[in-house]
Amino acid sequence: MQLNLVKNMADLQQALAGLRTQGSVGFVPTMGALHAGHASLIKLAKERSKNVVVSIFVNPTQFGPNEDFTKYPKMLEKDMETAKAAGASLVYAPSAGDIYPEGFSTSISAGNMNKILDGAFRPGHFDGVATVVAKLLLRVVPQVAVFGEKDYQQLCVIRRVVQDLDLPVEIIAAPIMRETDGLAMSSRNAYLTPEERKTAPEIYKTLCETVKHIKAGMPHRQATAEGVDKLSSMGFKVDYLELHDAATLNSIESLERPARLLVAAWLGGTRLIDNIAMG
Amino acid sequence: MQLNLVKNMADLQQALAGLRTQGSVGFVPTMGALHAGHASLIKLAKERSKNVVVSIFVNPTQFGPNEDFTKYPKMLEKDMETAKAAGASLVYAPSAGDIYPEGFSTSISAGNMNKILDGAFRPGHFDGVATVVAKLLLRVVPQVAVFGEKDYQQLCVIRRVVQDLDLPVEIIAAPIMRETDGLAMSSRNAYLTPEERKTAPEIYKTLCETVKHIKAGMPHRQATAEGVDKLSSMGFKVDYLELHDAATLNSIESLERPARLLVAAWLGGTRLIDNIAMG
Repeated sequence: MQLNLVKNMADLQQALAGLRTQGSVGFVPTMGALHAGHASLIKLAKERSKNVVVSIFVNPTQFGPNEDFTKYPKMLEKDMETAKAAGASLVYAPSAGDIYPEGFSTSISAGNMNKILDGAFRPGHFDGVATVVAKLLLRVVPQVAVFGEKDYQQLCVIRRVVQDLDLPVEIIAAPIMRETDGLAMSSRNAYLTPEERKTAPEIYKTLCETVKHIKAGMPHRQATAEGVDKLSSMGFKVDYLELHDAATLNSIESLERPARLLVAAWLGGTRLIDNIAMG
Repeated sequence: MQLNLVKNMADLQQALAGLRTQGSVGFVPTMGALHAGHASLIKLAKERSKNVVVSIFVNPTQFGPNEDFTKYPKMLEKDMETAKAAGASLVYAPSAGDIYPEGFSTSISAGNMNKILDGAFRPGHFDGVATVVAKLLLRVVPQVAVFGEKDYQQLCVIRRVVQDLDLPVEIIAAPIMRETDGLAMSSRNAYLTPEERKTAPEIYKTLCETVKHIKAGMPHRQATAEGVDKLSSMGFKVDYLELHDAATLNSIESLERPARLLVAAWLGGTRLIDNIAMG
């Protein structure tokens, strides 16, 4: 199958008109630097749609002033190969000016969910995510869109916005892809030194142990505090390791509803996130 | 022609499906209390569309805590008559729960435009407007939507959001309808005492005089300051009387681009707004 590349709104609409005559359109928005995790999202979208559109856009508005926007890996040619191998029909790789023309000033905010967990550590991040994803969904108008559970809070924010704005798209969550040692796949893993790379899987191990402790009856705040201590002793700087309601991301006291254990921790200059279900 | 009434999203979608088979759909969102000004919007929408949908929703999120949400006039039966006479096919009069189901938390903000003029005096007002109008446009998906120039800043905010989010609708501005003495038609005029009603047209007169002064070469800040003095001397409490860029609403120094003179002033317990083109 051929993989086409479009770089602006007008070409996107023309290409989409052709794809729509063939059947349903699935959509996987990405920031590029595609790895096997992204490939799994594209494959999942392809199972549900005749054609899959992948967007590649490193969205400046979801990076903070001291974050890694400028050094975020960019490799369109390799990304095209990955997208093609995974079954995509079209890559939309717009410029910032195509997404945010001069005078652009609208922002979309998913309410309180943008202030907790990663939202507390990355002010404005989820407003940037909500705005660009809503824009992309309104441009592509897919029947389904696939997001990875790796960015679990992002997934919750997008579900919220799609529901609140009645956007006519089904949001599909794809499970986290992991390296053989358990480290969640992430474009940012490329920043890790060989030494850090050896330590990084401790994040997932700690998530699993913490869930085990909670299931064995340990109060969840005690279990997560022990997890933070363990990670800190191994050289991580932990932003949070917390149990939240799996749908609303509200803090929880009891375990009556599905919960999600989420972690963000720095290893040297790299910030890693991960999460697992607890339900 | 028959006028149907629907009160929730599901019935709206069913009714719209029927209307869409007949041709294009025009849309006029209102807060009810329809007067000849609204009728002119509906007629304008009808000129451009096979069928016109009118929404009647007094949106709680665009009223401040001390504003007139609870006393805002509600009269569905009379509104239905007005809408029908003006040529509407469908009235969508949802409950707050239909527009904002439990858990709703997304908000849309049109950037800096929400902080100036009325935005400075009514914090959060334009975010409420932007959010509910975007929601209504995404539910009705009309080809055209008509908004009155009476709420000029609202019109600019909506144009901005529609453009920024690529919403597939043409926004049409309808000129202000005025009583014979020049007072801009408004549902809030009903709050005026007979005495206040006699004074109220001075707002429009002052707008016209101020424009005349500016066109005669008076610096616009001097002309508006004189206008404020005149209105104050007649018992108005003026929130603002200012000249702004007609498209961006930015402050302007020169008159090279189309400008708009906007005013908001209290007369007793009633806040009146008005504006005229300059350029």
